[in-house]
Amino acid sequence: MERGTLTKATLGRIPNYLRVLKSLSKDEYPNISATTLARILSLGEVQVRKDLNSVSGEGKPKIGYRTADLIGKLESCLGRNNLTSAVLVGVGKLGSALLDYDAFEDYGVRIIAGFDSDKEALIKTLSKEIFLMERFEEFCREKKIQIGIITTGESSAQQVCDEMVRCGISAIWNFAPCKLKAPEGVLIKQENLALSLAHLNSQLIS
Amino acid sequence: MERGTLTKATLGRIPNYLRVLKSLSKDEYPNISATTLARILSLGEVQVRKDLNSVSGEGKPKIGYRTADLIGKLESCLGRNNLTSAVLVGVGKLGSALLDYDAFEDYGVRIIAGFDSDKEALIKTLSKEIFLMERFEEFCREKKIQIGIITTGESSAQQVCDEMVRCGISAIWNFAPCKLKAPEGVLIKQENLALSLAHLNSQLIS
Repeated sequence: MERGTLTKATLGRIPNYLRVLKSLSKDEYPNISATTLARILSLGEVQVRKDLNSVSGEGKPKIGYRTADLIGKLESCLGRNNLTSAVLVGVGKLGSALLDYDAFEDYGVRIIAGFDSDKEALIKTLSKEIFLMERFEEFCREKKIQIGIITTGESSAQQVCDEMVRCGISAIWNFAPCKLKAPEGVLIKQENLALSLAHLNSQLIS
Repeated sequence: MERGTLTKATLGRIPNYLRVLKSLSKDEYPNISATTLARILSLGEVQVRKDLNSVSGEGKPKIGYRTADLIGKLESCLGRNNLTSAVLVGVGKLGSALLDYDAFEDYGVRIIAGFDSDKEALIKTLSKEIFLMERFEEFCREKKIQIGIITTGESSAQQVCDEMVRCGISAIWNFAPCKLKAPEGVLIKQENLALSLAHLNSQLIS
């Protein structure tokens, strides 16, 4: 099954499967079944079976999967064997938080640099390098960047999006509260943090 | 229809409906139909009809909804008439970003203060007040806080969650990368930012 067809929910469980599988002794568990994995993680067996099936096909009856093979397939689903490089534009509070957040690498993406049009951003102490926008095009083309993250304000988000597309970026994760226009073939993922909170609130007040 | 039964997708479109409805002249549009609203927003008519129906019942044939009534119902869905107060624990980079993010109020929630166990957090310049954890219980009980946001590291998240529950908080939005345990009746919304990025990446590499 192609990785693109995995649901977000399945993707979200894969790091847990990997954590457990890697913690098991290879001698004791040369093979592992969906049943055993479900039990260790206190998850439903049907769900685990479905997840593993979509990643690695059906397991062998009574045996399950070769543990080492399964680890390899799960890692490749997340793209961990081959991290995708991303850049971020807009090194404000949220941008800084994302630049310092290491868990993205567990999911196959490494944010390798941040960009801002304000020189003040350059003096921030973050775990990633920060550059001025002047260097954006050169950097993206040299590193063949495919993923761009926008954490600017609403007013400059579309301009940044256009610049990203011009520099060859084909997937954009947008935190600015506005709908972006991009040519066909460019993936846009709109993040709306307020919406998660609104949903929690609506459950509370209903 | 109860607000709790609105889907997250519907909730996400409500601020757009409100923005348009409020921008219309009251004389020209004493009433508005789903068809008109859909056209203005370039959305599918079926979707808009369904959204409005779940918020305000069916519109009158050929007339639609009384614009003023519809605005009132949409606002009450978001809880804007009666903002829910939230507190945040863990004033690091992400916590600071959330404390300074005003869009939550558009969705009915106001983060009124941040808490941290580290005195360093108190000197940050943010749009909200920051307190030491020592004051957490008193503050939550006095203000009858219902929503807590956790932006601490993984190691202290469960402890903060326990403290929130003890202080009467009944809905928790957790950004720490760990599953929290809470008594029945307490809502936990686990936020996994990495997952959105992973999903974008998986579409890119598939």
